[in-house]
Amino acid sequence: MKQLNFIKEIDKVKYIQRKTKLFNSDRNENDAEHSWHLALMAIVLMEHSNEALDLLKVLKMVLIHDIVEIDAGDTFIYDNQKNHSNTEEERMAANRIFGLLPTEQAEEMIAIWEEFEAGVTSESKFARSMDRLEPLLQNTSNNGGTWKEFDVNFEKVYQKKSLIKEGSATIWDFAEQQLNESVEKGILKKE
Amino acid sequence: MKQLNFIKEIDKVKYIQRKTKLFNSDRNENDAEHSWHLALMAIVLMEHSNEALDLLKVLKMVLIHDIVEIDAGDTFIYDNQKNHSNTEEERMAANRIFGLLPTEQAEEMIAIWEEFEAGVTSESKFARSMDRLEPLLQNTSNNGGTWKEFDVNFEKVYQKKSLIKEGSATIWDFAEQQLNESVEKGILKKE
Repeated sequence: MKQLNFIKEIDKVKYIQRKTKLFNSDRNENDAEHSWHLALMAIVLMEHSNEALDLLKVLKMVLIHDIVEIDAGDTFIYDNQKNHSNTEEERMAANRIFGLLPTEQAEEMIAIWEEFEAGVTSESKFARSMDRLEPLLQNTSNNGGTWKEFDVNFEKVYQKKSLIKEGSATIWDFAEQQLNESVEKGILKKE
Repeated sequence: MKQLNFIKEIDKVKYIQRKTKLFNSDRNENDAEHSWHLALMAIVLMEHSNEALDLLKVLKMVLIHDIVEIDAGDTFIYDNQKNHSNTEEERMAANRIFGLLPTEQAEEMIAIWEEFEAGVTSESKFARSMDRLEPLLQNTSNNGGTWKEFDVNFEKVYQKKSLIKEGSATIWDFAEQQLNESVEKGILKKE
């Protein structure tokens, strides 16, 4: 079973701490928990996708999208210093980690990861909207969460979250409302 | 979005500690991490399934199979007192938690969970073999892990693990070899 080294290697995803906390909690979420949650969200929310989509591909995307962080580390979405998307470091990580798989599988996984990062296809747009939605729900449940902790304002959050629109207009309506309510509650500040 | 309460509720899966530890680690795995890992294993190992299968269904199965433990708790596989499979408590949990979803989705999820528990279809046989394989890999990486900690012998482990055969003869060959090697290494005792 050539896949065994890959299966063991990805255990490290469980140690990668995100900045966001679990719902109503002060415990940081890790990348494995996050990926699992996105998969469930995609399953139950797919009816809201703007476009028809292949759910199996969406699930593969969200399940693997953070595996590169084993080598490249988690980048905070509101970090101004470091560019998140598909850095050279992440590409090298994808080649090394997915490269533990038999060639055909490695190529498929790298292609799916790249498709997710590019965000052009209906599957990647929906997968990315799940990736933006989960921390929004967590932060609203945590009295502002990382928005407060790292002093991020409404304008910046709104800009990052508006990517949800690409995947689902319905979910974006909901998200936008949550952001406005967060400002009203004083857990997200407007400049 | 009627799914929102479900999405929030299942966050609790991240707090359910399993008896088994992460690879080469003394940190317990939780059910969300476990479910994520099974999903990845299913994706990369599906070629070894005895029968043709619908991978999307397998992924749904492994991603949701432990959600009932939010109410029913994790039952240790080698616990002699408590029967694991599909207890009344678990059925009630399935009805309550999946019941947070719109009716059609709730019914689909409950049906998938029941199919997993029954273990008759090719998808459920393969999903269950993943569920048996992961802790085997963890225990061999952890110098015997729960086998040693809870004094479980080869015969009992062999009996539980032989379920893997139903999903994949190839993976069972590998697993059987791992069990025999574990006896040789002295990390799993024969009566």
